[in-house]
Amino acid sequence: MVKYLVKDIDEGVKLLRLDDDRTRFFEAAWHIPEGITYNAYLIDAPGGQILVDTWKATYSDLLMEALGEVTRPGRIKYVIVNHAEPDHTGSLPAVLGEAREAKVIVNAAGEKVLRAKYRLRNEVVHVEGTRSMDLLGEEMTFIHVPWVHWPETMFTYQGRTGTLYTCDVFGSFSIPPGHSVDPGDARYLRSAEKYLITVMGYYRKHVLSAIERIDSLGLRISRIAPSHGGVWEGDVREPLRLYRAWAGAEPRSRSVSMAYVSMYGSIEAAASRIFNELSSRGIGVSATAITDSEYPDLEEFLVDANDASAIVLATPTYDTGVHPRMKFLLELMREKFRGVEKPVAAIVSYGWGSNAARYVETVLRETGMKVLAVETFRESLEEGQASRVADLIAGAIG
Amino acid sequence: MVKYLVKDIDEGVKLLRLDDDRTRFFEAAWHIPEGITYNAYLIDAPGGQILVDTWKATYSDLLMEALGEVTRPGRIKYVIVNHAEPDHTGSLPAVLGEAREAKVIVNAAGEKVLRAKYRLRNEVVHVEGTRSMDLLGEEMTFIHVPWVHWPETMFTYQGRTGTLYTCDVFGSFSIPPGHSVDPGDARYLRSAEKYLITVMGYYRKHVLSAIERIDSLGLRISRIAPSHGGVWEGDVREPLRLYRAWAGAEPRSRSVSMAYVSMYGSIEAAASRIFNELSSRGIGVSATAITDSEYPDLEEFLVDANDASAIVLATPTYDTGVHPRMKFLLELMREKFRGVEKPVAAIVSYGWGSNAARYVETVLRETGMKVLAVETFRESLEEGQASRVADLIAGAIG
Repeated sequence: MVKYLVKDIDEGVKLLRLDDDRTRFFEAAWHIPEGITYNAYLIDAPGGQILVDTWKATYSDLLMEALGEVTRPGRIKYVIVNHAEPDHTGSLPAVLGEAREAKVIVNAAGEKVLRAKYRLRNEVVHVEGTRSMDLLGEEMTFIHVPWVHWPETMFTYQGRTGTLYTCDVFGSFSIPPGHSVDPGDARYLRSAEKYLITVMGYYRKHVLSAIERIDSLGLRISRIAPSHGGVWEGDVREPLRLYRAWAGAEPRSRSVSMAYVSMYGSIEAAASRIFNELSSRGIGVSATAITDSEYPDLEEFLVDANDASAIVLATPTYDTGVHPRMKFLLELMREKFRGVEKPVAAIVSYGWGSNAARYVETVLRETGMKVLAVETFRESLEEGQASRVADLIAGAIG
Repeated sequence: MVKYLVKDIDEGVKLLRLDDDRTRFFEAAWHIPEGITYNAYLIDAPGGQILVDTWKATYSDLLMEALGEVTRPGRIKYVIVNHAEPDHTGSLPAVLGEAREAKVIVNAAGEKVLRAKYRLRNEVVHVEGTRSMDLLGEEMTFIHVPWVHWPETMFTYQGRTGTLYTCDVFGSFSIPPGHSVDPGDARYLRSAEKYLITVMGYYRKHVLSAIERIDSLGLRISRIAPSHGGVWEGDVREPLRLYRAWAGAEPRSRSVSMAYVSMYGSIEAAASRIFNELSSRGIGVSATAITDSEYPDLEEFLVDANDASAIVLATPTYDTGVHPRMKFLLELMREKFRGVEKPVAAIVSYGWGSNAARYVETVLRETGMKVLAVETFRESLEEGQASRVADLIAGAIG
């Protein structure tokens, strides 16, 4: 059920959250049975109201309805655009259509996108770099944090409440039951990591830079308010630590994440032997099987791989190259694991000639991973191949 | 329900067909809600019995049960292996385990695969090139037709009944209600074309060569008996014509097949304008939409594209490149439309910098297609772009 939540999260700060369980594939790419939210925030400043971000275009009417419950749109004096992407600006035309006097706070790069997307009649206030200003009696700081996840992305810090409005960063898929994150909710954290890897994986380094930038400013942050998912309340060292670990693909434990494609069982048999060799060395293995009966969500493998100490990929040769589903997975890794120097081993089977091994190795090296081995076999692993792979992995992960 | 069919299709020729509705993804890649069959044939020759091909390993027990209904396995004197792939040889060890005196007829390349896969204790009779022989009183001709779909693939022709046993070629997905193909059954034909493109698309030219080879031999063929799907009975000019047209990607009508990925609607709006421009020129368009609510089976698009006079692809830029689902589709086309010189136009949107247009064009050119145009736009098509694309397509398809 599509619904919205209006909730006071601080004195004079309201969360306006749209709960979207209709979108099956976020960005037309990521399967999200858990749903997603779009969060806007309405700040009651002494001199008028400030809206931080909006919702997706589809939900413009609902945003106007939600706003109507708590204000008259004419009272909105400023709309802050932290990120120009349509899931946060789609309802902007509806808001500005009512709040005709409202000024749009955005940097020049963001304005360019807004003007390309929408008829923008309202006045624009430019903020570049890091800039503090008194806004209707609220001390606000705008911090340009490029490429999280577009060049124009920025954070907004509200001094009075210690709230950092971060848009996509610190966001998550899923629809939390309350407004705030329960840091003990493992499902939520999993979904947040999935969001980070799928949507922001290409921009990992920029996420780390943005977190460093925040650290360096010495802000007194007591709340992180993203535009997807739950609000982090209280001690924000935990979300900073988590998102830093996720963006850095830090191993959670001494473990391997394995994905394989098996058409008729020979790759599955090889994967099973490697599983046993790793297990006998005390290394836990999570396996993602792509077979003639299963095609699991690869988003889940990406999260497993992000958490693992090392990765194993196994594929048959298909049409002289890599199996199409492994090719898809490799291309996802090329995008989302860019610069992640994690150890990886690959297994490639063949019946006739094969360019598959070279292809796998090239993609993994271009991604920036540490390629430990690309083992090939015909029909079944040769003596010693599985233990060699396991030894290399054990050696690499210590 | 997994079941089998034992059916006399000629005097002394029995079809043994396993109906598999459990396999969801053939080759761990192609979604087949329609199921698939594995066909073996038992020939009652004057001097004993000949088995042509077998089933998938999973169904070995059922094959032995089916054989037990119509013969004693010891009566089988020869097993002909037209294709060594596991969906046709997986049950071979079970058969040979009972029919210990049976000789395996296969070429050297096929034997190599069999020996790598299975413990082969039975005697092997080599057949290379095109060779006729009297087999237990049946005149049989073995015709090596390489790369349909492995190097070792061959057809077997039985002179007395005019039956050509073709294994993968002339095969189909789906489980026909009767043993033979109803040439008026459009659903069956669609599934057969889907099989040809997905499984054999990379080997189109070899399929055409195999059909030419058959033509050139002047055989009196009155039945085509493949190892997947229905048996073609009677006038075989129709299947020859159909598979030639499918392998040659011959346009069925003056039409365009379009596939697009749209995250927030701007590509969808562009696709819709191109749809209108094409329609106004009397060109029919079938559209495959990949959005945040839909991810249709791309196999169906591949069939549409195979039948169309021209193709249109539209994608947003994503992480500075092509959207991952369009990348997957492009890679499928690179494999399955290899050498298909069909006109294609592409539309690429971008917000910031983009390498997507170059990538799309490179893949399409490497595939061998006629790239008419790669149009790019920011947020929405510019004046004249849609009509230019439509004009180019109308010009190319005449």
